[in-house]
Amino acid sequence: MALVNENYLKLPGNYLFSEIARRVNEFSTANPDATIIRMGIGDVTRPLPDAVIQSLHKAVDEMSQAETFKGYGPEQGYQFLVNKIIENDLNPRGLNIQNDEVFVSDGSKSDTGNIGDILSVKNKVAVTDPVYPVYVDTNAMAGRAGDFLEKTGKWSDILYIPCTADNNFIPALPAQKPDIIYLCYPNNPTGTTLKKEQLKVWVDYALSNKCLILFDAAYEAYISESDVPHSIYEIEGAKKVAIEFRSFSKTAGFTGTRCAYTIIPKELEAYTEKGEKVQLNKLWNRRHTTKFNGVPYIIQRAAEAVYSEEGKIQVSELVNYYMTNAKIIRESLLNMGFEIYGGINAPYIWLKTPNNMPSWDFFDLLLQKAHVVGTPGVGFGPSGEGYFRLTAFGKKEATLEAMDRLKTLFNK
Amino acid sequence: MALVNENYLKLPGNYLFSEIARRVNEFSTANPDATIIRMGIGDVTRPLPDAVIQSLHKAVDEMSQAETFKGYGPEQGYQFLVNKIIENDLNPRGLNIQNDEVFVSDGSKSDTGNIGDILSVKNKVAVTDPVYPVYVDTNAMAGRAGDFLEKTGKWSDILYIPCTADNNFIPALPAQKPDIIYLCYPNNPTGTTLKKEQLKVWVDYALSNKCLILFDAAYEAYISESDVPHSIYEIEGAKKVAIEFRSFSKTAGFTGTRCAYTIIPKELEAYTEKGEKVQLNKLWNRRHTTKFNGVPYIIQRAAEAVYSEEGKIQVSELVNYYMTNAKIIRESLLNMGFEIYGGINAPYIWLKTPNNMPSWDFFDLLLQKAHVVGTPGVGFGPSGEGYFRLTAFGKKEATLEAMDRLKTLFNK
Repeated sequence: MALVNENYLKLPGNYLFSEIARRVNEFSTANPDATIIRMGIGDVTRPLPDAVIQSLHKAVDEMSQAETFKGYGPEQGYQFLVNKIIENDLNPRGLNIQNDEVFVSDGSKSDTGNIGDILSVKNKVAVTDPVYPVYVDTNAMAGRAGDFLEKTGKWSDILYIPCTADNNFIPALPAQKPDIIYLCYPNNPTGTTLKKEQLKVWVDYALSNKCLILFDAAYEAYISESDVPHSIYEIEGAKKVAIEFRSFSKTAGFTGTRCAYTIIPKELEAYTEKGEKVQLNKLWNRRHTTKFNGVPYIIQRAAEAVYSEEGKIQVSELVNYYMTNAKIIRESLLNMGFEIYGGINAPYIWLKTPNNMPSWDFFDLLLQKAHVVGTPGVGFGPSGEGYFRLTAFGKKEATLEAMDRLKTLFNK
Repeated sequence: MALVNENYLKLPGNYLFSEIARRVNEFSTANPDATIIRMGIGDVTRPLPDAVIQSLHKAVDEMSQAETFKGYGPEQGYQFLVNKIIENDLNPRGLNIQNDEVFVSDGSKSDTGNIGDILSVKNKVAVTDPVYPVYVDTNAMAGRAGDFLEKTGKWSDILYIPCTADNNFIPALPAQKPDIIYLCYPNNPTGTTLKKEQLKVWVDYALSNKCLILFDAAYEAYISESDVPHSIYEIEGAKKVAIEFRSFSKTAGFTGTRCAYTIIPKELEAYTEKGEKVQLNKLWNRRHTTKFNGVPYIIQRAAEAVYSEEGKIQVSELVNYYMTNAKIIRESLLNMGFEIYGGINAPYIWLKTPNNMPSWDFFDLLLQKAHVVGTPGVGFGPSGEGYFRLTAFGKKEATLEAMDRLKTLFNK
């Protein structure tokens, strides 16, 4: 008798963004004339940079000729791309990453989800709270989360490390010792960051306790302050304890184009139950070559173009565009008297709801009265209750319009 | 202490194709002037059909304008592609598949590997032997395979169903009852097929025993005989017991372009340990939306073009090109007195080595003496020992040249 993975049956209701989509659809069906401004899902809206477009066309033409056609490529990514990644993103920061420590993939969502494959189900997992739901859901699917407790909104076996205004969004070291720690900085959803010495606390903790840090740096390109690390490997010793996930999605507008990469240093080791050391790079290489067949050739050429002279200029223009939106949102909300966080090193603004209004009530209020869609903070975990996320990925005109509507709504 | 998934440590040596690559590299380093003809890995060589190229260019242009730019799409695939798949591949055969039963993905390798996520590790797995290594390796990684026994070349907990010339490559129902059965028809690596009544035996067995069949139909486009089913759903009742994997890789030359799809009928159920029925479609939808972010928009437009009028003609020309190679290989080998299988409904020719020569010896012989690379049958499982796979995916000229070299080598 074919048996299912019963862990899937423990997953509660709908995924956050499905529920948002459901409510928005319901509203727009009832109000067909309302112009909805979407500041919910963290999805980019600007077209791909011209350098990327040119490179795509060129690669498509290569695929049209037998002489230049490409079939299966290396699952880990073509060297032309891996070289560019290392030369531009990594080694100028003194990280000294080698080619076989970089794995090109179709997305950080896939990689942060799939990384659990090479790790024991017995590991104790810690997440900052609020948290990107994929970290928790994929551990629940694997059987590392225990049971979901409706009452607390938490999984029984996951360690939640609260990050709220009360601790200035700086996660405290946990009382109970985890084996695996997910850190995402600049943070999704709060838009906050850790400075070098704050991140060092975690690297040191992981070194002392033989923990593995899964570091999601998807928003690295949005860092504007000089004392915020772009990579966890800027911290001494991090290569022994951390995997870093990076993406072209938010940097170069690749959410619909799909390319990312994951760094697994060769000196990074985890353990067997008997305490023997095992190189994680080797295990991931095996996973990646067995369960994945590489990113499309033309998409890898597109990603390569991000590092051309024109590409770099165009990508920084993209980032500036969104960060101008972030500034508009920040300043407008501050003027309205909101308590807000993020938006300086990340395209996310995390706001405290007025009078501790529950996140979903605030969601409905904004949807019904201003036709603005954001993301309820509680959707990211219990410590997100009473918060709300707005993203800066919209069009500038729409962002300005949304802020005008909020001003009217809140009568400020 | 971060623990690894120790199942990975049980995986023996290198993946088949890595070992082939190693031997070929060694040979070509020692013999830099030798012109090697590669008939090993099942990778296409013809350029993408023109309709696909045109569609790619058009989609790239869409990504260059804010009005037509696409960010995140539905993880399950755009409806424009799902509709075309259903209208062309499925429902003309009377399969009556619904849109939400089709999941577009980046490859059948990914899907056949990842499908285990939604299934219990307690399931007993059966594979035909020889077998596409991904089925076995991914189950070993998940902990369903037991231990690898060097002596037999088998995993202790996997049921191997021999398919050799002795049984005309028709798998017999196993004595011990499996929960999950992998079937790949037209078969990789043997190139053989099952006729409708032969496949029906397995569907009926799965229905009676509550088994799940994972049916890999990646080579469906190569079927030339009318009594060979193109889809397992042509067999009555199959929707209750089978998942079908399909790919654009071998059909339209997408090995480096990456697009596939998987069909999970809503009536397909598996079980909890208590015997409650669970819809697998729902579980896979959760997996697919949580651990995957969709195929690139432009790649989905490329796949859509496969179904245009021009696309269909061009794809059938592609298939004909490779099947002409298959015919050349078949006839040449038959003339040389080889005992061969496949090559009629699949681009693979499976040959019996002369005098029961071990597969790897035959590999080395062909590499050293004819500079032709094939795949040792034993690399696909113990029942592949004494067999060898040649693929028809090369250029016609190279295929002819390879056959000439073999004629010289075997002095026929």
